[in-house]
Amino acid sequence: MKETSIIGAYETKHGDHKKLGLRDLIAEAGNGAIADAGIDRADIEAVYVGNYAGTGFNGQNTMGSLVATVLGLGDKPAMRLEGACASGGLAVRQAMLAVASGQHETVMAFGVEKMNGLDPDKTMKIVAEGQDQDLEGGYCISGPSGFAMNAVRHMHEFGTTREQMAMVAEKNFYHGSLNPYAHKQRIIKLDRIIKAPQVSYPFGIHDVSLVTDAAAAVIITTRERAKALVKKPVRILGSGHGGDYFTVAMKGDSVSFPASVKAANEAFNMAGIQRTEIDVLECHDCFTVTEIINIEDLGFVEKGKGGPFTAEGHTRLGGKLPVNTSGGLKAKGHPIGCTGVGQIVEMTFQLRDQAEGRQVANAKHAMTHVLGGPGAVSAVHILGRED
Amino acid sequence: MKETSIIGAYETKHGDHKKLGLRDLIAEAGNGAIADAGIDRADIEAVYVGNYAGTGFNGQNTMGSLVATVLGLGDKPAMRLEGACASGGLAVRQAMLAVASGQHETVMAFGVEKMNGLDPDKTMKIVAEGQDQDLEGGYCISGPSGFAMNAVRHMHEFGTTREQMAMVAEKNFYHGSLNPYAHKQRIIKLDRIIKAPQVSYPFGIHDVSLVTDAAAAVIITTRERAKALVKKPVRILGSGHGGDYFTVAMKGDSVSFPASVKAANEAFNMAGIQRTEIDVLECHDCFTVTEIINIEDLGFVEKGKGGPFTAEGHTRLGGKLPVNTSGGLKAKGHPIGCTGVGQIVEMTFQLRDQAEGRQVANAKHAMTHVLGGPGAVSAVHILGRED
Repeated sequence: MKETSIIGAYETKHGDHKKLGLRDLIAEAGNGAIADAGIDRADIEAVYVGNYAGTGFNGQNTMGSLVATVLGLGDKPAMRLEGACASGGLAVRQAMLAVASGQHETVMAFGVEKMNGLDPDKTMKIVAEGQDQDLEGGYCISGPSGFAMNAVRHMHEFGTTREQMAMVAEKNFYHGSLNPYAHKQRIIKLDRIIKAPQVSYPFGIHDVSLVTDAAAAVIITTRERAKALVKKPVRILGSGHGGDYFTVAMKGDSVSFPASVKAANEAFNMAGIQRTEIDVLECHDCFTVTEIINIEDLGFVEKGKGGPFTAEGHTRLGGKLPVNTSGGLKAKGHPIGCTGVGQIVEMTFQLRDQAEGRQVANAKHAMTHVLGGPGAVSAVHILGRED
Repeated sequence: MKETSIIGAYETKHGDHKKLGLRDLIAEAGNGAIADAGIDRADIEAVYVGNYAGTGFNGQNTMGSLVATVLGLGDKPAMRLEGACASGGLAVRQAMLAVASGQHETVMAFGVEKMNGLDPDKTMKIVAEGQDQDLEGGYCISGPSGFAMNAVRHMHEFGTTREQMAMVAEKNFYHGSLNPYAHKQRIIKLDRIIKAPQVSYPFGIHDVSLVTDAAAAVIITTRERAKALVKKPVRILGSGHGGDYFTVAMKGDSVSFPASVKAANEAFNMAGIQRTEIDVLECHDCFTVTEIINIEDLGFVEKGKGGPFTAEGHTRLGGKLPVNTSGGLKAKGHPIGCTGVGQIVEMTFQLRDQAEGRQVANAKHAMTHVLGGPGAVSAVHILGRED
């Protein structure tokens, strides 16, 4: 396998973009990444697109071909990857593998989702289609109710508290307030998060990720070519893809997502670095408890210690392991198929010292993590500076 | 890149399966392929699933995870590939590349679509979402009207006739009558095809592919392991993936699909064999004219000669190049995301001498071709006997 690097990265402002259509979001992100890389678009040999539900949200399927067409790459092979909320991570992974295996030299990984504009019930139905509808749809196993069960069990087994979960939200809102790309750029105080209207116990409305429109793109090439092309290439040191059962009733564990554990182990084995070498992490905080479970599953703290680790401030900017400097799914937003690509953009900014007010000083290694369906799919990437 | 082979193949009977749910179709095809290979399912390391619109047809997204779960492979990495009607071909290709690159040793490529059961208007809306809805949906550019324009232009430029198109249908219905897996197993005479109610000039109802439910699976491993495991492995000699613009108005040509040309050239370059060495072809006859255009684009006849080549009987069983021995999308049926995988199953049967009444004697090399969206995505595979 060849070594690979990122030479271009761009994401649109995340938000409720009433005036922007799919084509607008696609053009801004894709052309932005091409300009950032400073390459001729004709050098891009293939396009890998993460999109969860263009059909439901936009009446548009086959987003691979649409993205390629809008970017003037319609004559290149394009495909859409879908793995629920991990779709963007899968697009990055398949793009990286195409370069690593020598199939292509330079490719684009893209993520896009335009979720706003529908009736909220319809939106929630589309989101729930990423869980087992046949066996569990009728039992209201949706994102909020499913992850709420994980939260309650985590509280029961490890003493994780409502306050610790709210601290995840407070921190990510604070980080988001520093990120011009974030959907919500405002600080929300802890007591307001705790007292917010309930969605599904123990989650209030501020424990839940946002319904967001956005697109993001990264351009990947060989490490060797990257060094010749750009001043600050960002290496893709490791990549992992883990799976777990789609049906909640078939899962063996309520306080861990084995898909994340497997994806992280694969990525660390490939990267050949230790957990302690990761300086900054973007992980899938679809709900506040998920971030707590993620930092355990990814191996940064012992199982059960995610709540205290958060409460002690270690995941905040300036802490031992800043988590979701972008604001995460909570404040930057969760444009489903875009999220995994947007994480790579944020970590590229960190490793190129472009993260401004949210910059982690001297960050050498960064990690991204997405989790899709009811913990059924995870994609993890480890990035590093070239120097 | 390592050489790869198919060690297991299975498809369900194609049809309107009122009594079978998604889980039933998935279980039959997946378990059938595992039994055919004679391996332990734990040996399968990853699952690549072609599915076009589980959301629209079945209210179920994230079909990669559902397929893996139903087959007892929920702990393995799974993903869904979507490229409109080429989705199944992309799943086979990504599965093959994973083995060829050394990422995995043994993987499953899967295709599934359950299309029947909805109001026909709703079904057609879901199918049309595989074309550019933003710019062309409002102008009724759907499958039938779009391909009808290709047909009329082909008639104008090359003198292709209504009768020649009907001959494609008559042949494929004849082939389908010999295939126990086909949705329609009946002979329909030429004059009935020509006089059938019109869908979109020049197409009558028998020029159009079927709305079909089915699932198909193939198991792919290294050539070396395949030889050790099964008596008649089928080699994957070549693979290609071509792209073209998604928006019909942006296309340069109405009588050719450049995506098919590119995919075929890539596959032949990889296989290192000549067009004349292909003994049997499954190609994407979504409409009768498409088969005529395909055999030109894939390089078997000169541009414009597809009609006469068909009329002379060369594409019929017993002819120079039997095309769509399964009955094709026309008679075997077109379960969208399944089609590209089902083609590989049919060609595996041919190369293992298991195609019974539709067997092409001494077939050594076979080819498959799918075309998705308005000619925007094509995947081509070339298969060969081990001996």
